[in-house]
Amino acid sequence: MVARYDTKIIDHLLDSYKRATDLVMDSYIPRDGSGSFLYELMPLYPRRPGKGIRPGLCLATCRSMGGDARHALVSAAALELFHNAFLIHDDVEDGSEFRRGLPTLHNDYGVGIAVNVGDAINVLSLRILMDNLQVLGPDLTWHVFSEIEHMVRQSVEGQAIELEWTRSNRCDLTDDDYLRMTLKKTCWYTCIQPCRIGALIATKSEFDLDRMNRFGYFMGASFQIQDDLLNLIGNYERYGKEIGGDIWEGKRTIMLIHVLNQCTRREMARLKGFLATHRVDRKEDDVTWVLGLMEKYGSIEYGKGVANELAKAALEEFHEAFGEVPDSDDKAFICEMIRFVIDRDL
Amino acid sequence: MVARYDTKIIDHLLDSYKRATDLVMDSYIPRDGSGSFLYELMPLYPRRPGKGIRPGLCLATCRSMGGDARHALVSAAALELFHNAFLIHDDVEDGSEFRRGLPTLHNDYGVGIAVNVGDAINVLSLRILMDNLQVLGPDLTWHVFSEIEHMVRQSVEGQAIELEWTRSNRCDLTDDDYLRMTLKKTCWYTCIQPCRIGALIATKSEFDLDRMNRFGYFMGASFQIQDDLLNLIGNYERYGKEIGGDIWEGKRTIMLIHVLNQCTRREMARLKGFLATHRVDRKEDDVTWVLGLMEKYGSIEYGKGVANELAKAALEEFHEAFGEVPDSDDKAFICEMIRFVIDRDL
Repeated sequence: MVARYDTKIIDHLLDSYKRATDLVMDSYIPRDGSGSFLYELMPLYPRRPGKGIRPGLCLATCRSMGGDARHALVSAAALELFHNAFLIHDDVEDGSEFRRGLPTLHNDYGVGIAVNVGDAINVLSLRILMDNLQVLGPDLTWHVFSEIEHMVRQSVEGQAIELEWTRSNRCDLTDDDYLRMTLKKTCWYTCIQPCRIGALIATKSEFDLDRMNRFGYFMGASFQIQDDLLNLIGNYERYGKEIGGDIWEGKRTIMLIHVLNQCTRREMARLKGFLATHRVDRKEDDVTWVLGLMEKYGSIEYGKGVANELAKAALEEFHEAFGEVPDSDDKAFICEMIRFVIDRDL
Repeated sequence: MVARYDTKIIDHLLDSYKRATDLVMDSYIPRDGSGSFLYELMPLYPRRPGKGIRPGLCLATCRSMGGDARHALVSAAALELFHNAFLIHDDVEDGSEFRRGLPTLHNDYGVGIAVNVGDAINVLSLRILMDNLQVLGPDLTWHVFSEIEHMVRQSVEGQAIELEWTRSNRCDLTDDDYLRMTLKKTCWYTCIQPCRIGALIATKSEFDLDRMNRFGYFMGASFQIQDDLLNLIGNYERYGKEIGGDIWEGKRTIMLIHVLNQCTRREMARLKGFLATHRVDRKEDDVTWVLGLMEKYGSIEYGKGVANELAKAALEEFHEAFGEVPDSDDKAFICEMIRFVIDRDL
């Protein structure tokens, strides 16, 4: 097992990076804009309690490589806002009911308004990135911008793969399929690109950014599996989403894929039927039955094992990527984050 | 009445600008991308028959001011793609059933996939704009980029106002409210910013772009009212959306606002009740009754009159904005476009 994370390092730095990012985000959301109702809704998700993993990784990477965190704050705020816009649209796309302990935006205000608020946050993130021009100059600003463009493109491609799996009721998926989808949907925007952007700003393009890719991929994939595990076995108060929601949504997690590959033909027939129905037509009994299958086949233990192996690989790749970086609190923080993502209960 | 438009000028140039833009758009949509289902869906709206008003205005403005249309093609393609992404999300937000003669994307593939395809087209538009760098250099590229950022922000703000009117069942709106909302939702991205971007690229920031604003505002508002009129009285085969769909959606058009301001208290009570129900609960009889009220109070004639007055104002402002621009086919085309937008039946 990968050792437990050092709560002191994580709690202190994650929190301080989150506060700094929140201040910048807040300063960008207009207080009185002419579409005033819009500007009341835009801060709702960003102000709910979140962990701030993406800005944390970005700012810590920047500092660990000798950069000035102030130069990366605008990009960190843009990363966090893109993340929030992504969550709003993701919740609509998956029909999710809770996010960060409260009803999803579309549950409170309807799908139309939620989609538009997501769009508004996306365009605000772009405006924020344009302000890099004053601090970073045109070349670096463009470079950050192209990193962000790549990141958003990967996320929508990953999202498309997952939505298509649900739509066509795919029941023949493998762990490889899952990891490829997760690389696109989660890893780029949660780990790889935040670290790349931090390194880029610190070293002014002198560092080979591709060295972050394997590290960020392993870390991001273990993060996603832990997120899916918490959805099955977590504590709602801490986790903030409906427990078992992924089963209600028919989401192809590595645990569900494990069940699909282990179960009997009879069980498969019932599972396939369950997954073919619309969310609103699914029954509590069936959800409990799917959870039971996961217990029967040890799918939850299996998921924990995969997350742990991925975290181990991330630790190895961390030493490859950051090998020449001198020791510092920030370097230790990034290393601890690998343990944190599979150890957290929120 | 504003005179009828010259079909020869419009048909020829609008079509050739649209074809050139379509070629560029097509070249940017990946054929085999890893999220392949996504890349099958992305071209669906762009390939349906559209008029190409936005790229047409952009390219014609550029050429009329001595610019090379090839330098504006990338921006014209980005404008048209942003428009398509906007339509996909707008159709979700309004619960529309038809677009350009076929079912809306969310009706065919579900809301989740449609929202994600819109997001994918938005990020593709950004990538396209980044290619301006090679042709226009960094300063002009940034300038175009900030025009686009302003345009998208105005559109989401306008959209937010309109969605909020429906959500809170506003029945006390005036023509001024309508025109302010339309300026944001329609005029910037349909007329003002396409002309500004064309002028910007032709004159390399030498032209005072604000001279386009009044012209584009009047033209855009008359365009929107004509669009809403066609929704009430158009021919489905030509117009491509369900006739009367705006009434089913409870959309606050200038015609509905006219009825709300003219009707008796009893009629108002019934109207308010009708508009308070969900779209799916509205009855055909009620929709027919609302159409009848519009006839009774001359609201359609009223709308036509307002559109005509706005087109007249646009013509005057056109001469202000383009006064020093030498005569050319492109200048004549832009002038004819003012008549076209209120004269068209599609």
